Amino acid sequence: MPISRFYKLYISPNRKYVKVLKNLLGFVPGNLSLYKLAFRHKSAAQNIKKGVKNSNERLEFLGDAVLGSVVAEVLFKLYPYEDEGFLTELRSKIVSRVNLNALGKKLGFDKLIEFDSKMLNSSRQGSLLGDAFEALIGAVYLDKGYDFTRNFLVNHIIKSHIDIHTLEQTETNFKSKLIEWCQRHGKDITFDLATNQEGESNKLFTVQASVDGEIMGLGKEFSKKNAEKLAAEKACAALGI
Amino acid sequence: MPISRFYKLYISPNRKYVKVLKNLLGFVPGNLSLYKLAFRHKSAAQNIKKGVKNSNERLEFLGDAVLGSVVAEVLFKLYPYEDEGFLTELRSKIVSRVNLNALGKKLGFDKLIEFDSKMLNSSRQGSLLGDAFEALIGAVYLDKGYDFTRNFLVNHIIKSHIDIHTLEQTETNFKSKLIEWCQRHGKDITFDLATNQEGESNKLFTVQASVDGEIMGLGKEFSKKNAEKLAAEKACAALGI
Repeated sequence: MPISRFYKLYISPNRKYVKVLKNLLGFVPGNLSLYKLAFRHKSAAQNIKKGVKNSNERLEFLGDAVLGSVVAEVLFKLYPYEDEGFLTELRSKIVSRVNLNALGKKLGFDKLIEFDSKMLNSSRQGSLLGDAFEALIGAVYLDKGYDFTRNFLVNHIIKSHIDIHTLEQTETNFKSKLIEWCQRHGKDITFDLATNQEGESNKLFTVQASVDGEIMGLGKEFSKKNAEKLAAEKACAALGI
Repeated sequence: MPISRFYKLYISPNRKYVKVLKNLLGFVPGNLSLYKLAFRHKSAAQNIKKGVKNSNERLEFLGDAVLGSVVAEVLFKLYPYEDEGFLTELRSKIVSRVNLNALGKKLGFDKLIEFDSKMLNSSRQGSLLGDAFEALIGAVYLDKGYDFTRNFLVNHIIKSHIDIHTLEQTETNFKSKLIEWCQRHGKDITFDLATNQEGESNKLFTVQASVDGEIMGLGKEFSKKNAEKLAAEKACAALGI
């Protein structure tokens, strides 16, 4: 074992955190501050410069791109005879917020993410997991480079936790699914923009999916479209569609 | 000079094509068939399996993802104090169809792209350049790996051909720009879906942007939204907005 690795795991004041990350990731992280940043939601961030906070949002931007590229290559090679429409759709299922949130939960991110619970109600907290997952990919990329990140994603995440062939069969357009179901059953469906609760960011959109006037799903996201999608998905789950 | 390189440049039956690519890319390509594929538009593709054509569309899917990842990293490092909203917007300007088409033209792709001119009228041909640029990135990635592609893009393309700081200042939402201008000048603006010409793919959307009933811009793209954008941009150019 190289000395730096030994130091990090057994001597460093951060050794406990290093061990948690090692168990999670399967490798000993290099630059620890990147990983800490990846798990810091903006509700728990401090200002580092006028208007700039040290949250995981920038890492999430980077990680989202790296993840998109790795998944593109995996699908490109896994499906040599499918066209780009198929590949694009399947990729968007794999990197969907719903799928990444579930992945973050499975990996135990809820114990690692720093956030201010006063700023976020519980329905919004689920989304932090997927955001943190993307930010983590950004951190691994900056710490270890592309090829390492690619191998980490393929061997440690995709092979163990993502069932591509099942996702391939899944119909994930919940909004059209919900609208169709309502038409078939003669029910009214509306998507309404609701006012945010106190203390929530004004960039956040809250959408209620109501069936025959009854709220069946609530989605909060940073775009109206994604909030509608999430609301539709929750309504589908509630109605057992 | 290694023998394989010498063979490719001076002996191989493809030596002329290899030299063209070397001049274009600044390196000697490995797997030549990948590069040939990158420049083959689907109008010139043959069926390789039922419903599957050997066009550059799959490579374009891969290259688009790799390009997005490289540009994300460049911007992440170039703008350490900007938030993810800024980074996302600037990236979309860099990888916009308009920008990539211009880049493909500058690099002389029009001489390399194989397409069937009977299938495409001239207004659609501009888009082939950007598509081929993305496909080329996919080919370089498969041929040489991520780090090579990243360095190629940064040193050979971005530094020489993309003025990030100018793009940063550019307002590229042509649709809102056009609508605003029309409101200010008391003119009517409409975006109409037009019928495609004979021989054009039925996946293609043709949108006309008309100001006071006069067609000022025409956009053809594979999504209605992008066709509107392109039409708006052309109308802006025509009106000198």
